[in-house]
Amino acid sequence: MRRWNGWGDDAQDFPLKAKGLEFLGEKLGGKGTILPDASLADVTIKVPPSRLPAHPLVSQDVELRIRHARGESFPDWVAKHSGEFGYFPDGVALPKTGEQVREVLTWAYDHGFTVIIYGGGTSVAGHINVPASDKPVLTLSLEKMDQLLDLNTQSNVATFGAGTPGPRVESQLKEQGYVLGHFPQSWELSTVGGWVASRSSGQQSLRYGRIEQMFAGCTMETPRGQLVIKDIPASSAGPDLREVVMGSEGRIGAITEVKVRVTPLPEHESFHVGFVPDWESGLKMVRELAQGKVQLSLMRLSNADETESHLSLGGDHPLFKAYDRFLSFKKCRNGDRCMFTFGVTGSKRQARFALAEAKLAIDHAGGTYIASSFMGGIWEHSRFRSPYFRNGLWEHGYSVDTFETCINWDKVNACMNAMEQAIKDASDGQPVQVFSHLSHMYGQGCSIYTTYIFKNSDNYAALLTRWQKYKQAAGDAIAQAGGTASHQHGIGRDHAPWLNVEKGAEGMALLHSIVNHFDPKQQLNPGCLLIDES
Amino acid sequence: MRRWNGWGDDAQDFPLKAKGLEFLGEKLGGKGTILPDASLADVTIKVPPSRLPAHPLVSQDVELRIRHARGESFPDWVAKHSGEFGYFPDGVALPKTGEQVREVLTWAYDHGFTVIIYGGGTSVAGHINVPASDKPVLTLSLEKMDQLLDLNTQSNVATFGAGTPGPRVESQLKEQGYVLGHFPQSWELSTVGGWVASRSSGQQSLRYGRIEQMFAGCTMETPRGQLVIKDIPASSAGPDLREVVMGSEGRIGAITEVKVRVTPLPEHESFHVGFVPDWESGLKMVRELAQGKVQLSLMRLSNADETESHLSLGGDHPLFKAYDRFLSFKKCRNGDRCMFTFGVTGSKRQARFALAEAKLAIDHAGGTYIASSFMGGIWEHSRFRSPYFRNGLWEHGYSVDTFETCINWDKVNACMNAMEQAIKDASDGQPVQVFSHLSHMYGQGCSIYTTYIFKNSDNYAALLTRWQKYKQAAGDAIAQAGGTASHQHGIGRDHAPWLNVEKGAEGMALLHSIVNHFDPKQQLNPGCLLIDES
Repeated sequence: MRRWNGWGDDAQDFPLKAKGLEFLGEKLGGKGTILPDASLADVTIKVPPSRLPAHPLVSQDVELRIRHARGESFPDWVAKHSGEFGYFPDGVALPKTGEQVREVLTWAYDHGFTVIIYGGGTSVAGHINVPASDKPVLTLSLEKMDQLLDLNTQSNVATFGAGTPGPRVESQLKEQGYVLGHFPQSWELSTVGGWVASRSSGQQSLRYGRIEQMFAGCTMETPRGQLVIKDIPASSAGPDLREVVMGSEGRIGAITEVKVRVTPLPEHESFHVGFVPDWESGLKMVRELAQGKVQLSLMRLSNADETESHLSLGGDHPLFKAYDRFLSFKKCRNGDRCMFTFGVTGSKRQARFALAEAKLAIDHAGGTYIASSFMGGIWEHSRFRSPYFRNGLWEHGYSVDTFETCINWDKVNACMNAMEQAIKDASDGQPVQVFSHLSHMYGQGCSIYTTYIFKNSDNYAALLTRWQKYKQAAGDAIAQAGGTASHQHGIGRDHAPWLNVEKGAEGMALLHSIVNHFDPKQQLNPGCLLIDES
Repeated sequence: MRRWNGWGDDAQDFPLKAKGLEFLGEKLGGKGTILPDASLADVTIKVPPSRLPAHPLVSQDVELRIRHARGESFPDWVAKHSGEFGYFPDGVALPKTGEQVREVLTWAYDHGFTVIIYGGGTSVAGHINVPASDKPVLTLSLEKMDQLLDLNTQSNVATFGAGTPGPRVESQLKEQGYVLGHFPQSWELSTVGGWVASRSSGQQSLRYGRIEQMFAGCTMETPRGQLVIKDIPASSAGPDLREVVMGSEGRIGAITEVKVRVTPLPEHESFHVGFVPDWESGLKMVRELAQGKVQLSLMRLSNADETESHLSLGGDHPLFKAYDRFLSFKKCRNGDRCMFTFGVTGSKRQARFALAEAKLAIDHAGGTYIASSFMGGIWEHSRFRSPYFRNGLWEHGYSVDTFETCINWDKVNACMNAMEQAIKDASDGQPVQVFSHLSHMYGQGCSIYTTYIFKNSDNYAALLTRWQKYKQAAGDAIAQAGGTASHQHGIGRDHAPWLNVEKGAEGMALLHSIVNHFDPKQQLNPGCLLIDES
């Protein structure tokens, strides 16, 4: 069953191994600080009576309201573990059809209720959090709409209920020989409608594209009526309205059906690892691979700190020691060496050609390709398990969070350094382990993804304050460097303070105007994406 | 010098050869009907006095007003040759900087004038035509803003003045070792700002993408103020505002600077031709090449009628006869065979690999690859010369027009047949030569481009009426089949009647709302993109 206060299914975990614990102890000044966890019963008694009138499609079940109150951001984690949720939805609607979505949305809108549209509840930016509100708050969850509704096998377009989560997307497609290929780290729980609404990107965007390239059309219920976007391969017929739906974050309506571009299952797919002796040679290598349009399906370049951290946190296996010696011999020494993870996907001929191109590039960068499938296999095995690691760290009294951006190649170094430095500076001398990788390589630039791990503060209030300082520093550093407020996680409530830096005054005015067109009374997810409505 | 009443530079032409004339005579029931051409002097005397007050940035020169009154649609052609222009702009502004654009736009807006924003004047859908208006009409041309302003050689982003035409885009980039790769047939005259405003696509979109993939950011002057879109490689920060600018067709403001994604000049580029025995095998082949992500830079599949027409209209060369015998021997017989034109572009290794893949596909389709570079060379040589062919046909009393759409693979056959049949049916028994090709192949579908040639009517009024019947029939057929109102030419005024079929009621309401946000007084290009404003 899905954990009510942590990531994923409770039959799965990603415990911290002895070597990892030792590594963190060294880096973070000793043992972690274990904080007391609230129980579900503790939270249950805090849930106030619902302010909603009865409706056949709306449940007022208390546990359901708890389970839909928060996402997966760091403040959400703190809320769930401290038991201090703040606000709860007054009810949760679980419609099964587009008609039911329209019915419940119309009912709520006409009654003046606040409506929060909910997919998989995996937001790390506060998208589905319940705001303080005089009005009753209804959370409208699409999770019962999880079917493949149609598959056009000539045009390779699949239609899904918007609440279909990643594994159900792929299992239903696989039966018919197809793949969507959208693999965000949240894939186990996030939904196709959520990917569209938050404009997300998956690990193999290099082959399959961001959700932007996959999203072909939709049906959306808005307070004004139904917005239908037809699935046309490409068009010059005026502004592209898909691009208003994508990133709308529940502000203009509820997506009920999504049409996505799929591809036949590839003949071949494999993941590989190489090492380059230092950051600069790795950076140049991945930039040239991206700009040279080499058909890899995934590229990820870990900086030296991430390389060391990953090998230490993940690596009890005896092969790691052998690799360490081998790499040192090959001039890829610990402290400078950077790990390059990549995938090849496609026809056998394409995959062979792309693999050869990648090996040439590694060689050209003075690096070493790891011929065994062991390291690539580790990545593949753990590709969706990283979120579980927060549970594993927490048990030992450590916290972890991540943040990300996307920026032009010429600013990557300055931005990554500023992001890491911002966390260190915000730490007030307390140790923090910070590391980064580049992924989602484009011709113009790439994303930068930074992770930081720190020992818990002595109490929840102090922990949250500390995180807020980190978040502010990170957001400011990115904005100042010229990166986007988010490459793949959306704006939600947590990134909203920086959106105006990216969009400018006229861009913000346009966004307000679009939201206002659909939701003049500002009842849909107020405070998400755009702040200060009035 | 640029022709005032026909395509392109008057030093260039594309005359109809003897064999082509004979072919058309056979197909279209004999010799053409030559209509009398108006002279520039004839038109000059029809230009009314300007209704604009004087402004230092605005010219009221009569020839300039004539030259900016019309684009390159069929009705525009008729207007220029009959001398019946209808309306002329009251003045033409030729600003040289963004500040001057803002100055003249503010002046015109504040005075209540109608403003038409003008790039290269190559619209084939009436984008820049002067509407009937009680108010003075100012055409604001960006043509003096034609410089490469910045080139970021790490991030491969180039900044251009919005009025830079295709050849100047590429010549300025080539000096520094880069290429944009946007090659619409109008490339000689169309501008980078116009490509963005009309959401265009070029011949090598398979490699370089549509303008949508190239367009990284811009500066735009709107009646509300300046809209600046930053060049970020990818972002999940809310709706993508580039997608509102693209396809805005002069309705929300004037783009002054455009940032585009460029690539280093390829090591290798070549164009090739093959033939397949029939349409169905060709259709399957191009679909599988596109869905298999084979890295070709261009694909074009001519149907049997286009194949025959092209070889007859273009082919006086003795090699053509030899090919004809060779192809018949190879079971690619005249009447059924379809020509497949393709390009390979990239590193030498990539081009070699892609060429091998394409040859395999042709072989698999039962077709024949033409090993000589002769046929591919013909395509390359004439890739921008087709628009000149209208001049060549006209001299012999024939008219030509084209129309296009984009549709899912499973509907391609039905749509193409409906498009061709619509023209034949609208012809009332008069002969018309209709043929089509597929190009711009996507995983989901492709564009269909149909050409029709017919003998001129006895007078201009009858010719225009006949064309209007064709246009109506073509637009209806596309809309009914489920294709887009335009894949690459935009909506303008000529396609506006069908936009609502594509966008739906709520989509249209959103477009009106966006236009209204920027231009509440509807002074910018009224009637373009959206009809019935009030």
